Amino acid sequence: MNAIDWKVEANDGEARAGVLRTRRSVIETPVFMPVGTQGAVKGIRFEWLEDELDARIILANTYHLFLRPGVETIRHFGGLHRFSTWDRSILTDSGGFQVFSLAALRKLTEEGVQFQSHLDGSSHFLSPEVSMEVQAALGSDIVMVFDECPPGDAGHDATRKSLELTARWAARSKTRFDELQDNATPNADLSGRQTLFGIVQGAGHFDLRTESLERTVGIGFDGYAIGGLSVGEEKSVMYDVLEFLTPKMPANAPRYLMGVGTPEDLIEGVRHGVDMFDCVIPTRNGRTGSAFTSRGKLNIRNARFALDDRPLDPECACSVCRRYSLGYLRHLYNTGEMGAAILISHHNVAFFLETMRRARKAIVEGRFEAFRSDFLGKLSDNDPAAV
Amino acid sequence: MNAIDWKVEANDGEARAGVLRTRRSVIETPVFMPVGTQGAVKGIRFEWLEDELDARIILANTYHLFLRPGVETIRHFGGLHRFSTWDRSILTDSGGFQVFSLAALRKLTEEGVQFQSHLDGSSHFLSPEVSMEVQAALGSDIVMVFDECPPGDAGHDATRKSLELTARWAARSKTRFDELQDNATPNADLSGRQTLFGIVQGAGHFDLRTESLERTVGIGFDGYAIGGLSVGEEKSVMYDVLEFLTPKMPANAPRYLMGVGTPEDLIEGVRHGVDMFDCVIPTRNGRTGSAFTSRGKLNIRNARFALDDRPLDPECACSVCRRYSLGYLRHLYNTGEMGAAILISHHNVAFFLETMRRARKAIVEGRFEAFRSDFLGKLSDNDPAAV
Repeated sequence: MNAIDWKVEANDGEARAGVLRTRRSVIETPVFMPVGTQGAVKGIRFEWLEDELDARIILANTYHLFLRPGVETIRHFGGLHRFSTWDRSILTDSGGFQVFSLAALRKLTEEGVQFQSHLDGSSHFLSPEVSMEVQAALGSDIVMVFDECPPGDAGHDATRKSLELTARWAARSKTRFDELQDNATPNADLSGRQTLFGIVQGAGHFDLRTESLERTVGIGFDGYAIGGLSVGEEKSVMYDVLEFLTPKMPANAPRYLMGVGTPEDLIEGVRHGVDMFDCVIPTRNGRTGSAFTSRGKLNIRNARFALDDRPLDPECACSVCRRYSLGYLRHLYNTGEMGAAILISHHNVAFFLETMRRARKAIVEGRFEAFRSDFLGKLSDNDPAAV
Repeated sequence: MNAIDWKVEANDGEARAGVLRTRRSVIETPVFMPVGTQGAVKGIRFEWLEDELDARIILANTYHLFLRPGVETIRHFGGLHRFSTWDRSILTDSGGFQVFSLAALRKLTEEGVQFQSHLDGSSHFLSPEVSMEVQAALGSDIVMVFDECPPGDAGHDATRKSLELTARWAARSKTRFDELQDNATPNADLSGRQTLFGIVQGAGHFDLRTESLERTVGIGFDGYAIGGLSVGEEKSVMYDVLEFLTPKMPANAPRYLMGVGTPEDLIEGVRHGVDMFDCVIPTRNGRTGSAFTSRGKLNIRNARFALDDRPLDPECACSVCRRYSLGYLRHLYNTGEMGAAILISHHNVAFFLETMRRARKAIVEGRFEAFRSDFLGKLSDNDPAAV
């Protein structure tokens, strides 16, 4: 049996509505994956994510879990699902991105990366093989290859060098992944077979994107991710790369745009045929009092909300918008109550998930462009208080 | 119609099981009131307090709400219930305790207290009359008189002086409260008639406690609180005062021990005939990783929990104990995840509420002493890891 099953149910231009089945859940795409870095989505209890928000898949970070609580602890509990109690799908990144962006690098070699923990300076080693082993111990449903992610403004030569290393690491990732899958003990708690996604790099260079795509597809994966976007480059670069690259990606595999993005970015990605997204902004912004709404972003600290009895977003049906007023949420934020982060993060994740559901419906009904135009038009009103 | 209805349903020794009906909820006593200082119980969404935890009454702090968001904002929203969306009972303190313990005092006079906000140093005035007006605007169901709370170790003379001021302020509180009730507009949203509780002071001096009780009962209130305990005195002083004072308090009115306390304190209070309690410790300790369990306190930071797949308290049926392991909660705490505070606070409040329900059942069944002995015996095992 395949570890995943992927079917495109409808196309509308480049946009597509699919169904991704993992061993743990059925995921309708396009889909936004809330980020649970440490095995928990910040501020939102799993009960809400399951019952009201109905998230089918979350992302967890290999780098963070590798450092704390560590692989042996996760293994002791029988994998990340059992440890965290989240029993729907989990996608784990490879740790590469965090190693290159967070940790003090010691040494990058053909073999892998020796680095120091951002927590205590302790020394660790990650390589394609180690990353596959860690992700096998985590037991995530979708595993990412270990790649090197160059800076968004990397020049052509540096980018080429990086993507060649990434290609060799991708092949090694697949080899080790396959060994681990063959050796995995099938058992009732589903800690067995996983699926592996490749990552296309190449920064803003179209020729290198093409080359990276060809080499990655040449190795062969169950899904393909677009890496190296939303890493500091101009927003237009991301949109240009999406427009150029996505139509060239295999149609018979899910496409995942890593670490992206704003509601606008998600809609642009969907337009170009991306199926999966993840980003920390709904919860990160929730903690700083910033809410995403159908009329753009609002910041709850704004004094004009003090006496406002309307919800964060009158068009949102989430439990926060059905109950709590702008005035009350502002009061919670101003008085340092955790409740502000909890409630605004909840709404933000609800908004992201619902936006993807609405996009999907529009694709199925063949009216994605009208939906997109309406959605982006409203967002740019950017004045929720005037609604 | 009375603002509250009080009935003792069973006595067992001095302990009693009662039913307190306010205009908003039916409260079975003995009861623990979770503290919602700013109109929110820290880390626990109202949805959980209503559905799973079934808290019937919470406490909110007049001092904090007076400063932020301020009386006019609360009034704009139609009272604290509408502002916060909590539609069960709310008890508000008078602000006195906080003014005396938190704020930089400027001037204590017969008239009231001029003080500086702990937030920005702005100058404010509270008096019995102002406190009644603020609490009327908050629209709480149970209002507390404005009192002066002397330090726990206050000498006899200082305590006598303080309680005489408190007695005069209690009379003024009642006068202003009655005026406000008579002038309140009866309306559908229940912002009308409130009930007023008196407060017995006297620190650790039995003769002054007796005198304060007599003067307070002389004025006449719908309920009587014991103030000035758990404010820095020896624990034995609190127990001695309870044993001495509580049997002298009117049997036909609810008795409320303010700001208390640990599970042991609650059980001792119940034993002596106290009906109502409030304390910040379930949520405050939850935020620092400290959990109350049937086998005593545990701190989630302890390394021995790292691989422990058992719940915080195997005897607890709350949603946290049914699902999450010590190992996972410890991981959340160690990685600075809000989830640790959210989940441990939830369990702690569940434990306090359930302890009071179990105490009530024991009283009704005439086996409170056996319950108490068993409960305290288990608590002092103090080794949850060994359960």
